Amino acid sequence: MIIKVKVWLEDKKGESLLGDGRLRLLREIERTGSLNAAAEELGLSYRDAWGRIRKLEQRLGAPVLERRIGGEGGGGSSLTPDAKKLLEKYEKIRGRIEKYACAEFSRSGLA
Amino acid sequence: MIIKVKVWLEDKKGESLLGDGRLRLLREIERTGSLNAAAEELGLSYRDAWGRIRKLEQRLGAPVLERRIGGEGGGGSSLTPDAKKLLEKYEKIRGRIEKYACAEFSRSGLA
Repeated sequence: MIIKVKVWLEDKKGESLLGDGRLRLLREIERTGSLNAAAEELGLSYRDAWGRIRKLEQRLGAPVLERRIGGEGGGGSSLTPDAKKLLEKYEKIRGRIEKYACAEFSRSGLA
Repeated sequence: MIIKVKVWLEDKKGESLLGDGRLRLLREIERTGSLNAAAEELGLSYRDAWGRIRKLEQRLGAPVLERRIGGEGGGGSSLTPDAKKLLEKYEKIRGRIEKYACAEFSRSGLA
């Protein structure tokens, strides 16, 4: 038997803010510096990826992406400092909860 | 912003054993003493409820229900002692993880 845990953030209306899907998308944007490249990497259409980001920005009431226009490499996207902080905190909480869950499960005798 | 946590148990093949749905069904069987009454209470067909129980028994390799035949009240179902122990442990772990998650979330400054 194994234990599974899912951790996500919602706004006060019960709308999802940050879970596995958006975390992966945002981390991929950070890594590639491009929404387009991140979408491709994750097998999403650009339209779909952009829709997810826009929804998140609407729900947070703040931008999560900064667009760089032109210049070397032809522009791209990066995360706002606030979005980076949110991701870091979410990943940290999630990691701790997963670790705690595994420890509790081991202690329970169900493992 | 609020944090949400889902906790469930799987077997080693990745098949779900116990989560919100089966927990509610089993608790309702315990409360009503009847699979039929429990299914009705939860808006499931008898066939569906029975299918869920059978799958769980197959995956655990052990019965979770004891059937009483006839007698006062016309028989019914109750949980096996092992099933009761499993439910108790799962609920306890789940409760602790939820509590821990809330505490971590408060500490994070995201709340």
